[in-house]
Amino acid sequence: MPGAKQQPIITLTTDFGTDDVFIGVMKGVILGINPAVRIVDLTHAVPPQSVEIGALLLRLAVPYFPDGTIHVAVVDPGVGTARRAIAVETASGVLIGPDNGLLAPAAEQVGIKRLTECTNRSYWLPRVGSTFHGRDIYAPVAAHLSLGVAPDRLGQAGASLTPLALPVAQHEQDGERVRVRGKVIWVDHFGNLLTNVTAKDIEVFPSQELSVSIGDVVIDGLVSAYAAVPGGKLLVLVNSWGLLEIARRNGSAGKHVGVGSGASVVVTVWPTAKSDAPMASA
Amino acid sequence: MPGAKQQPIITLTTDFGTDDVFIGVMKGVILGINPAVRIVDLTHAVPPQSVEIGALLLRLAVPYFPDGTIHVAVVDPGVGTARRAIAVETASGVLIGPDNGLLAPAAEQVGIKRLTECTNRSYWLPRVGSTFHGRDIYAPVAAHLSLGVAPDRLGQAGASLTPLALPVAQHEQDGERVRVRGKVIWVDHFGNLLTNVTAKDIEVFPSQELSVSIGDVVIDGLVSAYAAVPGGKLLVLVNSWGLLEIARRNGSAGKHVGVGSGASVVVTVWPTAKSDAPMASA
Amino acid sequence: MPGAKQQPIITLTTDFGTDDVFIGVMKGVILGINPAVRIVDLTHAVPPQSVEIGALLLRLAVPYFPDGTIHVAVVDPGVGTARRAIAVETASGVLIGPDNGLLAPAAEQVGIKRLTECTNRSYWLPRVGSTFHGRDIYAPVAAHLSLGVAPDRLGQAGASLTPLALPVAQHEQDGERVRVRGKVIWVDHFGNLLTNVTAKDIEVFPSQELSVSIGDVVIDGLVSAYAAVPGGKLLVLVNSWGLLEIARRNGSAGKHVGVGSGASVVVTVWPTAKSDAPMASA
Repeated sequence: MPGAKQQPIITLTTDFGTDDVFIGVMKGVILGINPAVRIVDLTHAVPPQSVEIGALLLRLAVPYFPDGTIHVAVVDPGVGTARRAIAVETASGVLIGPDNGLLAPAAEQVGIKRLTECTNRSYWLPRVGSTFHGRDIYAPVAAHLSLGVAPDRLGQAGASLTPLALPVAQHEQDGERVRVRGKVIWVDHFGNLLTNVTAKDIEVFPSQELSVSIGDVVIDGLVSAYAAVPGGKLLVLVNSWGLLEIARRNGSAGKHVGVGSGASVVVTVWPTAKSDAPMASA
Repeated sequence: MPGAKQQPIITLTTDFGTDDVFIGVMKGVILGINPAVRIVDLTHAVPPQSVEIGALLLRLAVPYFPDGTIHVAVVDPGVGTARRAIAVETASGVLIGPDNGLLAPAAEQVGIKRLTECTNRSYWLPRVGSTFHGRDIYAPVAAHLSLGVAPDRLGQAGASLTPLALPVAQHEQDGERVRVRGKVIWVDHFGNLLTNVTAKDIEVFPSQELSVSIGDVVIDGLVSAYAAVPGGKLLVLVNSWGLLEIARRNGSAGKHVGVGSGASVVVTVWPTAKSDAPMASA
Repeated sequence: MPGAKQQPIITLTTDFGTDDVFIGVMKGVILGINPAVRIVDLTHAVPPQSVEIGALLLRLAVPYFPDGTIHVAVVDPGVGTARRAIAVETASGVLIGPDNGLLAPAAEQVGIKRLTECTNRSYWLPRVGSTFHGRDIYAPVAAHLSLGVAPDRLGQAGASLTPLALPVAQHEQDGERVRVRGKVIWVDHFGNLLTNVTAKDIEVFPSQELSVSIGDVVIDGLVSAYAAVPGGKLLVLVNSWGLLEIARRNGSAGKHVGVGSGASVVVTVWPTAKSDAPMASA
């Protein structure tokens, strides 16, 4: 990306919320070390201690940032214990955070190059408390990296990072039909239900029809936009992250169906004659 | 404004909330195209699909930004359908968003110069999904504009933009008195009730008195500051947007009166002898 | 801090929330005057009109910002009355806001040098309303300061600022034991209970044990990390602000104990023989 080298970017993803001064203070620490860095909030609304949700949101967002971006993520129930603080160099930048799985899906998505344990205290704040390593370790380490410090100077080389397997949809044959069993992985601000069923998961037959079962509800067919159904109606589409999403036009599917993260989703797919294929490719 | 040319500004106004990575990802896309642009969040708390509230908040905010600012607004229930994506050049900058009325009041407020439909795909992301044009169309279009791309290169010239008439207060004579009938258009963070009754609406007589009726409550007279009444008391003033506002000192008028957006407000104004005019001019 | 002079920083701390365009508009005003300034949000979630909470959060955050930072804080129930708008020069920067105690604890923390009343209207917006001095006075004053305007040009020299004494823990002897009586001063996003009992307050004996009483609960001993107890258990530690904190591992202590800001906390400390000291120093 042209120019990206001139003003480095640090992103922040945490479960800290924005009601406290946690995030503001991390920014103060960063700007005290590198006043020229750009800081972007990804989100601070990861549910408290939910490493898996943090990992998912980070994996969705990271590919949209320019090369060289430094991503700091802190969902860290083990803060103050012996869990490692790590920096993961990838094909597109660096990820910094606790080694508890949080960084793994995003790192694998963009391609892991090298892992360093952030043990070199000369890149930390002088005093390190036991409850806020975002301020004392991750923020200053990211700021020093953004100044051009080589990642391998942050500490010793690390072995593989702690993995985190985001759940994957399962396929099963039932006569001519295929069932794809997945689950809701995130309910967004609108109440849309994001699932771990991918666009590829549901491309089963050259010409096909499908229905989606969730909670007590069955929804037939895919549409290509929220506005393709009347207001208040449920719908299924492949969203802009490439994931199957259950939504309700001008409403909340989560509240309407009465389910949340973790709920089971079953997609049934069956072949049709080419001429009457009703499936809209999103 | 001196210097504004050197570092362009993009503002963001959406109904996306900040619990997801939508906004962070839009910023990543923008910075990938123009790493030098300034990005300012206006608000992401427009109620879901509430084009009218988004239009109102945008109209309030836009006049306070320096010339040349690019405002991106996305409240877009029709995302993925044939509704147009537009760029509106105004006397003070550019507004970008869906052509569903969202941009109209702000554009009219500062003066419309030219309308372009954003149909030129070379300024979009290469892949466009059906649910998140903020990321795929509006963000990259704004970033390219901020690099100096001429607005008329974004696509074909457009006819007039879809209008949106924010409701206007009505005047009616009742003997010597004048009734101004308006409504609550927004309840702010403090529970203050902003109405569509303007300072000008209530300047009826050279010397006058007034009372405001809302819900089951009547409030007499205007004050010039929240602290002009005792704690817990309701009050009426002309706020810093030039709008009549019903507030409660150190409390929420919305909760106290039990009304919200859309509630009717009636201001009764009558003439007084010059000497005993009780109205404080705000 | 190297480079801090090149791009000044303005921080914002308010009770405005982020559902309105208040904060966005303040940023527009600032960037219209100084397009090169960095703006950092500390928090906008100070409870409405809670000067004391705003003062506490500001005092916690200010020491983490580089020298020269301009901090704007607006929790201003007296907006539109005769209360003064002030700029406080300190050893590390400038604090700007209403003179209602909000700035006092932070200013004292970093060292007060000079006080100026912001009465010079040439640094305000041309039109000043009665409800939003954040936009009309504080934002433009801060922006002008960030351009290099000398603080004493903002208006007349001021006498001492209105004080605000944050509550301090009290010590009392009970035989061999010492009781430290404090209170909860803030419940953070995780439900952790921050108290006004400092690390120094509880360093009573060379070798000691302690227990903490809050609500109907007694918690024995200090730990050094949230993860030192099993999930769901309450714990006490000295947090990264140097304050005694009651937390619940992977949960909310506030909800579990059923207390909030203002709740009494009693720490009982007694001496032990050196060999069996169970206290972990945090």
